[in-house]
Amino acid sequence: MSREAPEGYLGSEARISSGPAPELVEAGYALELADAPLLHHGLGLADLAHVLALHEAGVLPVEHSAVLVPALLEILDTPADAFPYDPAYGDAYNSRERELERRLGTVAGWLHTGRTRREAGRIAFRLAMRDRLLDLHEALTRFVIALAGQADEHATSVWADTTYLQPAQPSTFGHYLGGFGEEATRHLDRIEQAFRWADRSPAGVGGVGGSRVPLDRDRLSELLGFAGPGAHTRDVMWAVDGLADAVTAAAQAATSVDRLAEDLEIFASPNFGYVTLDASMCRASVLMPQKRNPYALAVIRSGAGTLVGRATGLLVTQRTPSARTDNWLHAYGEVAGSLDLATRLVALGAEVVRTLVVDRDALAAAAGAHFTGAADLAEELVLRTGLDYRSAYRVVGHAVAAAMQDARSSLTAEDLTRAAAELLDRSIEVTPELVDAASDPARIVAGRTALGGSSPDRVREHGQALTRRAERATQWRSERRAHAAETEQNLVATAKTLTADVE
Amino acid sequence: MSREAPEGYLGSEARISSGPAPELVEAGYALELADAPLLHHGLGLADLAHVLALHEAGVLPVEHSAVLVPALLEILDTPADAFPYDPAYGDAYNSRERELERRLGTVAGWLHTGRTRREAGRIAFRLAMRDRLLDLHEALTRFVIALAGQADEHATSVWADTTYLQPAQPSTFGHYLGGFGEEATRHLDRIEQAFRWADRSPAGVGGVGGSRVPLDRDRLSELLGFAGPGAHTRDVMWAVDGLADAVTAAAQAATSVDRLAEDLEIFASPNFGYVTLDASMCRASVLMPQKRNPYALAVIRSGAGTLVGRATGLLVTQRTPSARTDNWLHAYGEVAGSLDLATRLVALGAEVVRTLVVDRDALAAAAGAHFTGAADLAEELVLRTGLDYRSAYRVVGHAVAAAMQDARSSLTAEDLTRAAAELLDRSIEVTPELVDAASDPARIVAGRTALGGSSPDRVREHGQALTRRAERATQWRSERRAHAAETEQNLVATAKTLTADVE
Amino acid sequence: MSREAPEGYLGSEARISSGPAPELVEAGYALELADAPLLHHGLGLADLAHVLALHEAGVLPVEHSAVLVPALLEILDTPADAFPYDPAYGDAYNSRERELERRLGTVAGWLHTGRTRREAGRIAFRLAMRDRLLDLHEALTRFVIALAGQADEHATSVWADTTYLQPAQPSTFGHYLGGFGEEATRHLDRIEQAFRWADRSPAGVGGVGGSRVPLDRDRLSELLGFAGPGAHTRDVMWAVDGLADAVTAAAQAATSVDRLAEDLEIFASPNFGYVTLDASMCRASVLMPQKRNPYALAVIRSGAGTLVGRATGLLVTQRTPSARTDNWLHAYGEVAGSLDLATRLVALGAEVVRTLVVDRDALAAAAGAHFTGAADLAEELVLRTGLDYRSAYRVVGHAVAAAMQDARSSLTAEDLTRAAAELLDRSIEVTPELVDAASDPARIVAGRTALGGSSPDRVREHGQALTRRAERATQWRSERRAHAAETEQNLVATAKTLTADVE
Amino acid sequence: MSREAPEGYLGSEARISSGPAPELVEAGYALELADAPLLHHGLGLADLAHVLALHEAGVLPVEHSAVLVPALLEILDTPADAFPYDPAYGDAYNSRERELERRLGTVAGWLHTGRTRREAGRIAFRLAMRDRLLDLHEALTRFVIALAGQADEHATSVWADTTYLQPAQPSTFGHYLGGFGEEATRHLDRIEQAFRWADRSPAGVGGVGGSRVPLDRDRLSELLGFAGPGAHTRDVMWAVDGLADAVTAAAQAATSVDRLAEDLEIFASPNFGYVTLDASMCRASVLMPQKRNPYALAVIRSGAGTLVGRATGLLVTQRTPSARTDNWLHAYGEVAGSLDLATRLVALGAEVVRTLVVDRDALAAAAGAHFTGAADLAEELVLRTGLDYRSAYRVVGHAVAAAMQDARSSLTAEDLTRAAAELLDRSIEVTPELVDAASDPARIVAGRTALGGSSPDRVREHGQALTRRAERATQWRSERRAHAAETEQNLVATAKTLTADVE
Repeated sequence: MSREAPEGYLGSEARISSGPAPELVEAGYALELADAPLLHHGLGLADLAHVLALHEAGVLPVEHSAVLVPALLEILDTPADAFPYDPAYGDAYNSRERELERRLGTVAGWLHTGRTRREAGRIAFRLAMRDRLLDLHEALTRFVIALAGQADEHATSVWADTTYLQPAQPSTFGHYLGGFGEEATRHLDRIEQAFRWADRSPAGVGGVGGSRVPLDRDRLSELLGFAGPGAHTRDVMWAVDGLADAVTAAAQAATSVDRLAEDLEIFASPNFGYVTLDASMCRASVLMPQKRNPYALAVIRSGAGTLVGRATGLLVTQRTPSARTDNWLHAYGEVAGSLDLATRLVALGAEVVRTLVVDRDALAAAAGAHFTGAADLAEELVLRTGLDYRSAYRVVGHAVAAAMQDARSSLTAEDLTRAAAELLDRSIEVTPELVDAASDPARIVAGRTALGGSSPDRVREHGQALTRRAERATQWRSERRAHAAETEQNLVATAKTLTADVE
Repeated sequence: MSREAPEGYLGSEARISSGPAPELVEAGYALELADAPLLHHGLGLADLAHVLALHEAGVLPVEHSAVLVPALLEILDTPADAFPYDPAYGDAYNSRERELERRLGTVAGWLHTGRTRREAGRIAFRLAMRDRLLDLHEALTRFVIALAGQADEHATSVWADTTYLQPAQPSTFGHYLGGFGEEATRHLDRIEQAFRWADRSPAGVGGVGGSRVPLDRDRLSELLGFAGPGAHTRDVMWAVDGLADAVTAAAQAATSVDRLAEDLEIFASPNFGYVTLDASMCRASVLMPQKRNPYALAVIRSGAGTLVGRATGLLVTQRTPSARTDNWLHAYGEVAGSLDLATRLVALGAEVVRTLVVDRDALAAAAGAHFTGAADLAEELVLRTGLDYRSAYRVVGHAVAAAMQDARSSLTAEDLTRAAAELLDRSIEVTPELVDAASDPARIVAGRTALGGSSPDRVREHGQALTRRAERATQWRSERRAHAAETEQNLVATAKTLTADVE
Repeated sequence: MSREAPEGYLGSEARISSGPAPELVEAGYALELADAPLLHHGLGLADLAHVLALHEAGVLPVEHSAVLVPALLEILDTPADAFPYDPAYGDAYNSRERELERRLGTVAGWLHTGRTRREAGRIAFRLAMRDRLLDLHEALTRFVIALAGQADEHATSVWADTTYLQPAQPSTFGHYLGGFGEEATRHLDRIEQAFRWADRSPAGVGGVGGSRVPLDRDRLSELLGFAGPGAHTRDVMWAVDGLADAVTAAAQAATSVDRLAEDLEIFASPNFGYVTLDASMCRASVLMPQKRNPYALAVIRSGAGTLVGRATGLLVTQRTPSARTDNWLHAYGEVAGSLDLATRLVALGAEVVRTLVVDRDALAAAAGAHFTGAADLAEELVLRTGLDYRSAYRVVGHAVAAAMQDARSSLTAEDLTRAAAELLDRSIEVTPELVDAASDPARIVAGRTALGGSSPDRVREHGQALTRRAERATQWRSERRAHAAETEQNLVATAKTLTADVE
Repeated sequence: MSREAPEGYLGSEARISSGPAPELVEAGYALELADAPLLHHGLGLADLAHVLALHEAGVLPVEHSAVLVPALLEILDTPADAFPYDPAYGDAYNSRERELERRLGTVAGWLHTGRTRREAGRIAFRLAMRDRLLDLHEALTRFVIALAGQADEHATSVWADTTYLQPAQPSTFGHYLGGFGEEATRHLDRIEQAFRWADRSPAGVGGVGGSRVPLDRDRLSELLGFAGPGAHTRDVMWAVDGLADAVTAAAQAATSVDRLAEDLEIFASPNFGYVTLDASMCRASVLMPQKRNPYALAVIRSGAGTLVGRATGLLVTQRTPSARTDNWLHAYGEVAGSLDLATRLVALGAEVVRTLVVDRDALAAAAGAHFTGAADLAEELVLRTGLDYRSAYRVVGHAVAAAMQDARSSLTAEDLTRAAAELLDRSIEVTPELVDAASDPARIVAGRTALGGSSPDRVREHGQALTRRAERATQWRSERRAHAAETEQNLVATAKTLTADVE
């Protein structure tokens, strides 16, 4: 039954007497190799740092590093799709190993001193994960900025806020939009938290408990630009909790945009007519020439739902005995793919918001209809007539019902006095001014001055807070990107010095 | 803000004044276009059938069909990767529309009579889904056959079945394996059920409620090789419940293999030593030369966990208002990808089982240790001495505890009589023969003759039932594949006749 | 560290030297005991059937069964909440064991001959699961009937069907509703399929591979009213795949109702005004007296989302090594709770539909607006003028855009001829009659006569098919309920005969 | 069709003409009312704080507060199960409203001034959520402490760490356990983060955008003991992202314990024999008297899997348009139940670890077998002979294979020199001392001194870090609990002053 192993297939030199079955290549190696583009650059950095650490530990003779480093630098400069990756040999690491051996002969064998395939992969993955988290962070920042801008723009645009999609009370559309911004700032926090997890170095852990080869974990962390080495070698190698954090955060971020998209799809229907999506966010029908479909919103919602499944998958695969590999085999691709998907969705959401056209008149018309001032009226009755709220509520409710019976869409002072007399057998004084003060949407929202409320000033104030948060986010991200770039330059420069020393 | 639309972009001629934003292309069209390889062939068949139906309805003039058909046949013969698909135009349908127009001019416009882009996509997808369901069905059949074979092979291999991974009672390893086969037969049922859903034709539904163009839905179904048209046009166009069925079935199938893999990973550890995986299922470590890792099992388990997330994602995206598209945008890729993944996992599982080496001696040693005959002993005391079971249980438990105290691994008749005397103050007659009859694993399992039980005969009988089910599965699958192939030949032949008529 | 065990705690007589820790009672036994009300009746039946089987096998002496049976019948007649269940002893089975021993002494010990606690639990659970599946089946049947009724009622009520919530083409509201009915019939199929799984008997499997005690599995299955014994003893004892089927089916059923509810929540908004929910489905606000919230719809949607989580949980816990118990510990409660939840949601959905008030005028107004006849117009141009569809589409799209520019909401023959001239440089003949035939919603839908289409006749025909399916469902359910009731009577009667024989 | 409403049913005085349908009570109100025990105390506090805020705003006349406050204090002292909650009236708030009106008459109506039912519920829920997060935090702290203790205890217990459950390299069992502790400290971080979300006050938001009633949100937050008011009123009322955080954190915490439990279930099998669970964590079989089932581990794993479903459910129900209620209807119960479940599981896990008996000899035996020193040997060859690692690896692998062929379980210096000669055609110098230094597990682990590595000193050092983290956690929790208790005392005291003022 022995299958021939391809030349250079590692197993064939270990205790494994045949090559992999085609079913194994297809289900296993091909799966892992699909991550090669994701890991390629990071594997290059990990290899360089490892060689430097071996060199600095006095383990790797300088004549060998002088051969290894140039070859590694050359591979670092090779794009992933120009490198001969091949699932017949296993994962990306295996293909690299074989190619290096092909180029350099046995000196390539030094690279594996004191390090597992897994360690190299984990380093590369964490670097890739950090990049993708920053991309999502950037899209979220744009989303916050777009919302802050539109919230400011519509700080005075009254509308009827709803529950159950039934008109509730007058509010401002800027307030409505600002709430999504507030939620989005928490997604920034989550992404920053997930970044911290990814930013611990798994380098220098040997088999898993450390190594007899004297590798300096602090130095390796510095060379690779991590914030520091993970505190426990087995944990930093195997723990997957940060993956679920990242993907859950991505799913939650997408879900926020989804929720807004779901609202907007309704608001964009002709029956509502509150908003119009920019043409660049729409799609035509091939059958129905009159259609203008808000396609971007469906794209967002579809992706968000799919991401919930991705997050679940991560949580599911976490649940396995320790050090079994299965929780990691799909993880690289799933995490990276999920972060990419979320980034695309959030970026699209930011563009939807930025280019959104809002029909203030349609909003205002709805705000003034459907008795949305009813609760304000009842409150005003409490404040002015000494009625308890429940009684005031009944009075207004009775008046509303009566007005609807007459097909009227607003109340008069008489409606209320009559209702009070009928229901409570009590006479209350209601002026037309009172009714107006509690019916005009603009006057109503002007009084919503509680912290974080819907009055124009509060909405603008909150929009500014969103903007400041976005500025801090931009600053934070820039620092991290700059640090990663500098680290990489330093690593390459240090490696070249090493070669130069020999020459 | 207007973005330039690429030439031939549909929106630009409808009510949409600009091309799509890059964010929309990236998040939406690119996503949809990624399904082009999946849908390419089916779209070709759908186009042909639609042209035939228009022709047969007397709608499409024969001089136009004579131009359209050859072009469509040419595209049908073009591999997907040789066709100029481009996300700038939208999904696969849009690219095809534009290419056909480029080749034929306005005559290409006939193709869209009475049909939406969605209908063509749904037809192509259901055809692709059917194919993938058959592939998974085939892998499952191989899994059942492999299990039936090993069950038969190990119908007499005694082992200690466990609960909580603690030895419970003697059984046969063939019985253990046969149980997985039984479960797998239900997965065959599930796949067949999911196939039935996919096998209803969505062709000829017009916008969604039918069309003023007189298309014959029965004829279209026949031309495309479906079992029949869906009973309600809106339902057959939009309902996604069958997708969740398919992916849930795939996840459940993979989970069965996962469960076996989880067991085998433990049984393959040196501490158990029950089984050895074939070398073609194993992987070496680059650091530790002594290792021989049962890699295939981790691959299976990782994929199964991931599939649970996929199934969840499908269930999640189902939950949306009707006719909104978002539940379908990711669905083609997710369903096809999930079925492919499950097929790879099950095929790998079948190969793991087929090539599994079982150490009968190790199994037998464990079967004879750890007092696995204790319950049989207690039952034998009930059957022979008239003790109630609870008392017999206490007697045996007492004797076991005493033997363990003495570091003995088996019981004697005296142990039991002494325990009965001590615990129950009662004298019972226990012969060495009685102890032996209820301690020897082979004798114990020989008596497990209940229907579906672990005696060798019952195991073989059950294995034969599995084999018969696998044969029926093979037959069912062959018929469906043959029918699909014939249908396609007929469709192409009929289309050619049409052209010939003109010439 | 030894904790005192409560008297009668099983462990204390086995190899376990202390009672359970409070943490174990709280997290484990209390969890299991929470299922006592669910299992109580079935455990009573399982005990009776087991005693009968032991008797018929000649294992249980008649003088003991004469003592056991009356005690078991008495417990069968005791409501669950009147029975002294106590988590200190373990699960429901353990409490029953102890109580029986308290009442009868050692004769109670016969009950455990050849049977595990697990087997009794599984039997009781499958019986409870069958009942709950029938309840959900009944609610679904009512849902189908309500939809069939309203579909018939609104077979002629024209409305504008939508995609992306944008008006698409005229259709009938009865067609829209009938689509949900069609989907619901597949849920009936799923529930019936899940029932078949639950309807296999796990009785008589001994430890798990059968028993040396000669129990007749066919006879046990008959006594308990199952369709037959499971084909493999280990499989029927441990396999959980049917649980996921049941809960996934429940989640899918609830999701269908959710989807309708989501539509209706939009249609019930004043901006749409298509439907009004019955007052008995609504809820008031304590703050806003004018509100009338369609609360039932939110309840449905909330439950459906929750059920997706339940289904996922079942799929997740399936993924575990074999015979480890963890996949079953929460399963009884989760499955029963999920089926109950789904039943409540579907029953509520049925009532929402049955009492729904539809505003035909509002529907008709929307059907006639927004150029919903545009595709029909284009098709009519194809049919009458020989234009290809794409050209006709462009002509109509151009005319629509021009009309909107002029703030007109309908097209004239001139609009089309002018558009054709401008766009195609071609003269086409368009009569007012042609425009009218393709613009009037009622005339449009009258022509949608494709199988399952939206013409009134087709809608009524489909509604009748739904009704017939509902009738078959009712018949199927009645037979199963009658069989269960008869079986139970027979079991009790047979048990009493046994006692009588002795007296 | 009008159904009679129960007296005091709110709807009947609003625009809703009938009572709720039984289906609505069952699926909706009963669901909400099931949260009454959870919310009861917090609703009492919310009511008191609201009355105080109305009083301080000069809205509520002092003679009415003097009547309201004593009644509210009485209800606060009433246990939930002694309060007449009834689903016929709606949720807990509705029952309280009606009962207060029954007791006080119309003066009760003041309580609803400027506040929704929802606001009261949200306050009560966030208070309850905070409590439950602290309970889980406490259980996690105990889990960390137990692991730190056992890690210290087994800092020198060598064992064979594994991957794929195949022996990899010698390590220490304390190192293995410490890794779980490290992961658990991140769960503490997550719970603290979730607490911060719950700790923002939703009080004083009026309908949702603020109120014309001048309520002071800062003061309300202070009265209720929150860290501060939420920054945006609509967001703090409706956002659910913190719920998913909490439940995901709970699921992740449980999953960590699950992973350990999964390992321990294997390690506790007789085939491994590494650990023995305390009797108080085990369960007997009613059939098999020899069994001693590690029941606690199955309980943990079952709960963890179920929690993944709960977390998914939360993510799923998040995905809904804004302000629709459905995302909250199940949330109170699901979040509280999930946190309770996780607390029980983690507490059980802490107790499993604390009472775990580890067999050092069994661990050591395995550590010394299966050539676990192979990688160390290869590394030693690199360090001493100048071989590159790949060549050294091949040499050792060859020697291992040869030794296994001879059924030997250890290597000699000659094995290695011979392998080098055969494989590399090279002579290397290998001393017995070299072989011994790289074969003796204790010597190997002594050299694993990398940060966070498995050497005894490093393990103890890490254990101390865990202990310090646990101490900080305890401090943090105590402060929060003390703050909550003081706040409540102050609130009650302030309320009483108010009453006294009047008297």
